[in-house]
Amino acid sequence: MSTAPPGPPGPHWFGLGDVLTEHARTRPDDTAVVCGTHRSSWSELDRRVCALAAVLASRGLAPGERLLWLGQNCHRLLEALFAAARLGAVLCPVNWRQSVDELRFVLTDAEPSVVLWQAVEIGEAVAAARVDTARVDTSRVDTTRVDTARVGTVGSAHWIQHDDPGPDGYEALLAAAQPVAAAPVDPAGPVLMLYTAAFNGRPNGALLSQTALLSQTTTLLLLEGVGADEVFLNSGPLFHIGTLRRTLAVAHAGGRNVMLRRVEPELLAELVQAQRCTSAFLQRPTMEQLVALGGRYDLSSLRTPPGPPGWDELVTVQRGARVRSGYGQTELAGVVTFSMPERPTVGGLPGPLATVEVLDPAGVPVGVGEVGELAVRGPMVMNGYHRRPELTAAKRRHGWHHTGDLGRREPDGSLSFVGPLRKMIKSAAENVYPAEVEASLRRHSGVAKAAVIGLPDATWGQRVLAVVVPAATTADPEPTTLAEQLIEHCRRELAGYKRPRLVEFVDALPTRDGGTDYDALDARFGGGGYPGTG
Amino acid sequence: MSTAPPGPPGPHWFGLGDVLTEHARTRPDDTAVVCGTHRSSWSELDRRVCALAAVLASRGLAPGERLLWLGQNCHRLLEALFAAARLGAVLCPVNWRQSVDELRFVLTDAEPSVVLWQAVEIGEAVAAARVDTARVDTSRVDTTRVDTARVGTVGSAHWIQHDDPGPDGYEALLAAAQPVAAAPVDPAGPVLMLYTAAFNGRPNGALLSQTALLSQTTTLLLLEGVGADEVFLNSGPLFHIGTLRRTLAVAHAGGRNVMLRRVEPELLAELVQAQRCTSAFLQRPTMEQLVALGGRYDLSSLRTPPGPPGWDELVTVQRGARVRSGYGQTELAGVVTFSMPERPTVGGLPGPLATVEVLDPAGVPVGVGEVGELAVRGPMVMNGYHRRPELTAAKRRHGWHHTGDLGRREPDGSLSFVGPLRKMIKSAAENVYPAEVEASLRRHSGVAKAAVIGLPDATWGQRVLAVVVPAATTADPEPTTLAEQLIEHCRRELAGYKRPRLVEFVDALPTRDGGTDYDALDARFGGGGYPGTG
Repeated sequence: MSTAPPGPPGPHWFGLGDVLTEHARTRPDDTAVVCGTHRSSWSELDRRVCALAAVLASRGLAPGERLLWLGQNCHRLLEALFAAARLGAVLCPVNWRQSVDELRFVLTDAEPSVVLWQAVEIGEAVAAARVDTARVDTSRVDTTRVDTARVGTVGSAHWIQHDDPGPDGYEALLAAAQPVAAAPVDPAGPVLMLYTAAFNGRPNGALLSQTALLSQTTTLLLLEGVGADEVFLNSGPLFHIGTLRRTLAVAHAGGRNVMLRRVEPELLAELVQAQRCTSAFLQRPTMEQLVALGGRYDLSSLRTPPGPPGWDELVTVQRGARVRSGYGQTELAGVVTFSMPERPTVGGLPGPLATVEVLDPAGVPVGVGEVGELAVRGPMVMNGYHRRPELTAAKRRHGWHHTGDLGRREPDGSLSFVGPLRKMIKSAAENVYPAEVEASLRRHSGVAKAAVIGLPDATWGQRVLAVVVPAATTADPEPTTLAEQLIEHCRRELAGYKRPRLVEFVDALPTRDGGTDYDALDARFGGGGYPGTG
Repeated sequence: MSTAPPGPPGPHWFGLGDVLTEHARTRPDDTAVVCGTHRSSWSELDRRVCALAAVLASRGLAPGERLLWLGQNCHRLLEALFAAARLGAVLCPVNWRQSVDELRFVLTDAEPSVVLWQAVEIGEAVAAARVDTARVDTSRVDTTRVDTARVGTVGSAHWIQHDDPGPDGYEALLAAAQPVAAAPVDPAGPVLMLYTAAFNGRPNGALLSQTALLSQTTTLLLLEGVGADEVFLNSGPLFHIGTLRRTLAVAHAGGRNVMLRRVEPELLAELVQAQRCTSAFLQRPTMEQLVALGGRYDLSSLRTPPGPPGWDELVTVQRGARVRSGYGQTELAGVVTFSMPERPTVGGLPGPLATVEVLDPAGVPVGVGEVGELAVRGPMVMNGYHRRPELTAAKRRHGWHHTGDLGRREPDGSLSFVGPLRKMIKSAAENVYPAEVEASLRRHSGVAKAAVIGLPDATWGQRVLAVVVPAATTADPEPTTLAEQLIEHCRRELAGYKRPRLVEFVDALPTRDGGTDYDALDARFGGGGYPGTG
């Protein structure tokens, strides 16, 4: 599953390597990427990718094998992705913000053949993780391993420091390489692996094909108007699909990517001004920091929707007309539903290359207005998780990609995201999704936070318990009164079997990994009896 | 090759049936198609397609089998294509302008399981072809047949008259059908067959997949701005990809298709006025006929580029900004190169999902400025020709789709179409393409028409002969003088080995099937010695 089947090239094959080949011919002198003082035209990028592919092949990176990027945003990451595409290999840009323990897990799990790593800023953590990995690798017996023929790959991976200016560094190797001509690669094979979906405490590597990436970028070209005139500031991390999908869309269109190693407002503003960036990956806190710089930089080249106070005066505001991204996830190479300005809907509409369904646990579509699991079919769906055949099979049961998220089809045909699926409560024959009940509780003015769990019930299998942090600002009713009000509130908003039978009040919800710790709630309040994989 | 491999549905599958499903949910009440007095919303179209799929399945149309459309433009043709997509079957819209002999060939060659036919206007020819087919079918021994298990399918095909108002007609069958739910279909399998490419006097059925069609329509959505607000008048024949590609792009976008059975200016103008059509398939003679109607109809809803005298006052002219289609062919589901207004180039640039190469006969790319065969890789490439395994293999050698057309890469990276490949002349080790030499000859003011053939040559294998119809308007030089001038002209424009060694003058070139009859020229002037498949 993780390797493209070998075979003769087909006349249908079109991938990222072909995109690069065409740009190098049709816009050879346009700037493709800017990174610090480095600037590559499309023809120069093509030459560098050819050289890198030769270096990686000579270091043993075979089709289907993993190439790790242990570094920050850089033009060389983009080169590594194109080189992987040309070789039929898989690039995995690793989250460099992780702890040594987390890095070690990824290094072990990914089984890379080659690692491109960075010394600046993150070299110590990388070195620590590497030592541990080597130690683990020689002693372990890994029963989760699928491909036993390649045991030991991690320990024997070739490490290349991309920011080493010496004779063993990336640039020296490129300069000495004997580039070979690009051969066609089956675009249905994986080319990108992103760790995500830590269902059970450890992340899983989602494998995305070239076809998946190009389906996503084509959708962005079409719906979000990405074009050859875009100068995109890569101000979000490239190990996350949120930024990377636009990086690739801009490259697909023949536009320009400007790299930013890490988000610092002053540096970001300088780059926008110097490179006349037209777009950037911007979240609200960053926009507020840019406003706080007090107009010292010319950001007028940025075309954005309206922003926080002071923002609209700094940039070129584009009102109304733009499509907005809706629901998406790493396993879908990005976004699959969009709000269309000319067609206002409650939720998002599927893009032109995807179909979305709302399924019950048996794989049967639920009715309009009912909550079920969002499921997707389309060329942007991942090939599966690296080394997780059972999890992969579970995600694609009934011929659909199961997102693990709850959604609802609205009467206008659009799709609303409700919340993560997590554990499901089963009350008699009925399915109760905690996220849906929690959303209802949070709409009550007396609630600050809410979590819903299931208690074992001799008669009904399970009954619904709401754990609530009361809102500080409300007049303080008796807990009993508030509990009754909340149950009544849910009775009005939800089907009867979904409403809580009991409400417990707490000062704070226990958390883990940034979210509510449901296991702790189960332990404290006696939750249990969940059906399915729980 | 002509049948999708059976297997469980995959989470990557997305096809025309899914497009219809989504439109029926997200724009159920928008009008999808108008045909005479018939009008279907997207939800109504979905219901009718479900019913038709049930009818066709009950008549024995299995996955991979052919459904013939022997009729003119009609909303039922679109229904048949969506039904074929839902069933994994292949719709073949037949050229109804063909002779009885030609229709009989297609009926026999296509081996249909079900035929949808039309009595109005073309019923007699269809009936005559059908009788002959039945006779041929029971007696023949067809050695070109690939699938011997299905011999006799033609004779036993189910015939349904689509314009029969009685109890056996299309509408009665639909009304009585028990629709079944749509199941996912592998979009890599063929869904459309169009006869084209009569290399050896008989056409071949090009099989196009759902992925190919959706790649083409996505490209049109992106580059030609097809959108949900388009009302497209289907005023070209739907058995030709030139019209059908836009029909499908409009359907993909959720726009509206208006059907016109045959091109009559008065009827066309009435429809544009009544349906407020925004686009139509229009060739210059038709535009001139519409101008000749003298402004009796309101055509202002049409958005077109500037046209012939009188045209621009009738319609809403769109100047400059639109992308223009360039090179294409049926085997590519339409067009693969485009001229981009913001980026003027000599030739066309490949669309975002195709790569184009110019190859020599050994499959090696030729240099910039040199002529070779245009070759394409991308998801829009056909699956092959029905029942022509050898021809299919020849078309996809070296992993490229060979177009059978000559082209040249210009210094600006764009691609120019030179002419059909046809026979190639081999002079020593050099390849001479007649179309290239002919194009050079036609640029000389003394030439009205020109054809180039190869004569056997003991020393060089072949030598180049130009057969020329002199221009009537030029001063009449001695033939010897003009011949010398033409040879000298070609010497200046072409490599030395390409210039004609001899020139013969004729009053007219022999023709066949609307083109030059090269076999007749070979016979008359002693042509021969062509390399390869000739």
